[in-house]
Amino acid sequence: MNYGIVTKVLGNLLMLEAFVMLPSLFISMYFRQADTMAFAISIFITCSIGYIMKSVPNVNNKSSIKAKEGFVIVSLGWIFFSFFGSMPFIFSGSIPSIIDAFFETVSGFTTTGATIIEDIEILPKGILFWRSFTHWIGGMGILVFTVAILPTMGVGSFKIYKAESPGPIHEKIVPRVKETAKILYTTYITITILEIVLLSLGGMSLYESMTHTFGTVGTGGFSTKNASVGAFDSTYIHIVISIFMIIAGTNFSLLYELYKGKWRDVLKNEELRLYLGIIAFSVVFIAININTSIYNNIGRSFEDSFFQVSSIITTTGYGTANFDEWPTFSKGILFLLMFIGGCAGSTGGGIKNIRILVLLKLIKREMSKIFHPRAIISVKLGQKIVPSDTLASIASFLALYLVIFSMGTLIISLEGIGLVSSASAVVATLSNIGPGFDFVGPTQNYAQFSSFSKLFLSWLMLLGRLELFTMFILLNPKFWTNKI
Amino acid sequence: MNYGIVTKVLGNLLMLEAFVMLPSLFISMYFRQADTMAFAISIFITCSIGYIMKSVPNVNNKSSIKAKEGFVIVSLGWIFFSFFGSMPFIFSGSIPSIIDAFFETVSGFTTTGATIIEDIEILPKGILFWRSFTHWIGGMGILVFTVAILPTMGVGSFKIYKAESPGPIHEKIVPRVKETAKILYTTYITITILEIVLLSLGGMSLYESMTHTFGTVGTGGFSTKNASVGAFDSTYIHIVISIFMIIAGTNFSLLYELYKGKWRDVLKNEELRLYLGIIAFSVVFIAININTSIYNNIGRSFEDSFFQVSSIITTTGYGTANFDEWPTFSKGILFLLMFIGGCAGSTGGGIKNIRILVLLKLIKREMSKIFHPRAIISVKLGQKIVPSDTLASIASFLALYLVIFSMGTLIISLEGIGLVSSASAVVATLSNIGPGFDFVGPTQNYAQFSSFSKLFLSWLMLLGRLELFTMFILLNPKFWTNKI
Repeated sequence: MNYGIVTKVLGNLLMLEAFVMLPSLFISMYFRQADTMAFAISIFITCSIGYIMKSVPNVNNKSSIKAKEGFVIVSLGWIFFSFFGSMPFIFSGSIPSIIDAFFETVSGFTTTGATIIEDIEILPKGILFWRSFTHWIGGMGILVFTVAILPTMGVGSFKIYKAESPGPIHEKIVPRVKETAKILYTTYITITILEIVLLSLGGMSLYESMTHTFGTVGTGGFSTKNASVGAFDSTYIHIVISIFMIIAGTNFSLLYELYKGKWRDVLKNEELRLYLGIIAFSVVFIAININTSIYNNIGRSFEDSFFQVSSIITTTGYGTANFDEWPTFSKGILFLLMFIGGCAGSTGGGIKNIRILVLLKLIKREMSKIFHPRAIISVKLGQKIVPSDTLASIASFLALYLVIFSMGTLIISLEGIGLVSSASAVVATLSNIGPGFDFVGPTQNYAQFSSFSKLFLSWLMLLGRLELFTMFILLNPKFWTNKI
Repeated sequence: MNYGIVTKVLGNLLMLEAFVMLPSLFISMYFRQADTMAFAISIFITCSIGYIMKSVPNVNNKSSIKAKEGFVIVSLGWIFFSFFGSMPFIFSGSIPSIIDAFFETVSGFTTTGATIIEDIEILPKGILFWRSFTHWIGGMGILVFTVAILPTMGVGSFKIYKAESPGPIHEKIVPRVKETAKILYTTYITITILEIVLLSLGGMSLYESMTHTFGTVGTGGFSTKNASVGAFDSTYIHIVISIFMIIAGTNFSLLYELYKGKWRDVLKNEELRLYLGIIAFSVVFIAININTSIYNNIGRSFEDSFFQVSSIITTTGYGTANFDEWPTFSKGILFLLMFIGGCAGSTGGGIKNIRILVLLKLIKREMSKIFHPRAIISVKLGQKIVPSDTLASIASFLALYLVIFSMGTLIISLEGIGLVSSASAVVATLSNIGPGFDFVGPTQNYAQFSSFSKLFLSWLMLLGRLELFTMFILLNPKFWTNKI
């Protein structure tokens, strides 16, 4: 392990974090809020420690970052970011407990949106801006991580981020990580500006438009209101946010192709079709179900169903209705969507549609094989054959997801809450959604959990965000003693 | 499709079924019960129809059974057996509704043990004997199907039944289906006799020993008592049944090797180790959990934990305690065991330990691959490499299991029951267990479900019992029109 280079890069990341805290400081100053000093101190500390780490002499004199260092930087980077990013919450007194503040910040950067804050609206504006801004930064980070960095590491499961793009976009047009990242930035910022404008036109203040846009495009879900998006009683706003959640859960390479005018290629994309298909089916079934049993107003039913389905499948977690009171059938569909999540190469979490698609194709192939046991039938995505090691990687991802989900549920069940509460708390953090059902339902929060559970759930958020395997590697002692 | 040969074989199966109804007729006559006539009529009808079908002239003049005919015979055979096997329940008036009687018989033959009977103890002795005997027959059927028939069809996922045997048992010692079947019969009957003797020694009547042995070795779970095995207040009986449930959930090839004195090979078997390991861990964790929260009696805690863990993981479903009242942590463990199920080549249902083992190895391999992206690391069972198409088949089995489980839960949730009730009813039937949680908990039964749900759950039992893919094929219209 090249500790020198790891420390340097982490130092650079901290200095970057100090920089991204600046807008919150300005917001705080502009609105003359009480949290100005908290930001000033946090920025000073973060910047100083970052500078010291950056200046550590590199004893090895090696500057190359291999896969191993890459994983450490990504994993520790996310933890460092969350740790230093929690300082404004602590210094401003908004969240006095360090563990709570850490949980909230991890939840922000991982774009989960699970909160331990009971009354959001009493917090100062700088803090709430920072809280939402962590989603935006986290969303950007995850895009760069999954689309630009992971595929270059060449591991089977992550090759999928390459495989899913129709046509040779990565190979020919933007061969290098930097260029890919630049395209992502541009797309991300364009969508952000577009949503801020559209929400402002709907009557939201600029401050509210910005904070809710950060939560949308990062598929985070932190709101500045206790009632979440439900606080804005406007069909227009609900629909704009629904659509932008769906956009944020789409593969960003596709959005870029769309911008390049390649409509036909985009519409042929199988992952996108599955994703939109699942959304359409879920919206219709839930709308009919809640209309019959509760609403008796087909317009409202479709509006709330559309919003909630978009919010859950994209792993955003905003709410316009207390879906915990919906009938079991609708809750069951939402529960399933929590596992599925967004598309590969989006800011959404979960298992991802591309993996679901490949698994469904595997099932179909197995059915055919029963009658043609000797035939070699390959699984294809678009025109490309999915190699067998990628199939195995996807299977192992699903298996690991289920193992973590099961064990996590057992551990959380020790809190003395029911099975649905425990299971949904785990999937809501592991898939980076935020709200779950029952004990962690949309009108509840995570404040009631023990410190141990809060740390455990924070770890699940990081685990889910970094595609499971990344965080696990840090737990392997062999990894640190250079035995791998 | 060679319909002639299919009809002939099904006719033979029905004549066999008439024959296996005879012991119940004798029991009924011996105890001078009111159900004697019901059996006489059922046997007459079954035998007659069987004879007619058997005598249908084979127009094709072909007698070969290919994979296609094999799947039809197995799937329809199970449905025919259940349909004709339900006649004694109907004719005796024990279960007047045809759908209920069909559900109960499917539950019997698939060795599920889910019941729609509210008061078991008022039923005549012949009927209760038949009800338990269906488990025994079903257990035998599933052994022959999975160990002798399926592997010869050469489909990836089912090759696993071959692959799991340590050493070349199938290839060299018993190359033909008949010989394999003979070994299975002998092992099965030996275990049956052994348990009947041991239970009789524990103070059970011969009738009770036999019925409960049928439920144990077939991993079924039908009891002659409303309180299930809990009605027998004897630690000895609880432990004997626990141990025999574990034996019945073990690969029968291993039991045969044990009988041949190959201790060391058996102990090296990785699936067996995983299976026993999961049981040991579950027993200890649940015992501690229920002792702290409810029992405050470490002996009783271990006894009940051992019984319930064995009962659930082997997919038997007997009960000595109302585990639905246990804390969430313990219930969570049992819920997980419902998915895992027994070993390959046993009478147990579920996903099976061998598949779980391979999936865990896949996860481990994926972790290694992160640091050695170019290395080719194979997954091994014992000394043998698991081929990549078998890996893909196992992954597709898991995926299909999860799809059926999810969709099934949504369909059952339309009954207006909670998520845990719906999900556990589906897994309890799909994994052939019987009792679940809450609405289908150990003190409840399946009588309250609508006719549609009863038929749907019956289908799930058959689906689970026939390794998922078999039953699905019948739903494909192409299959019947010779397009496959």
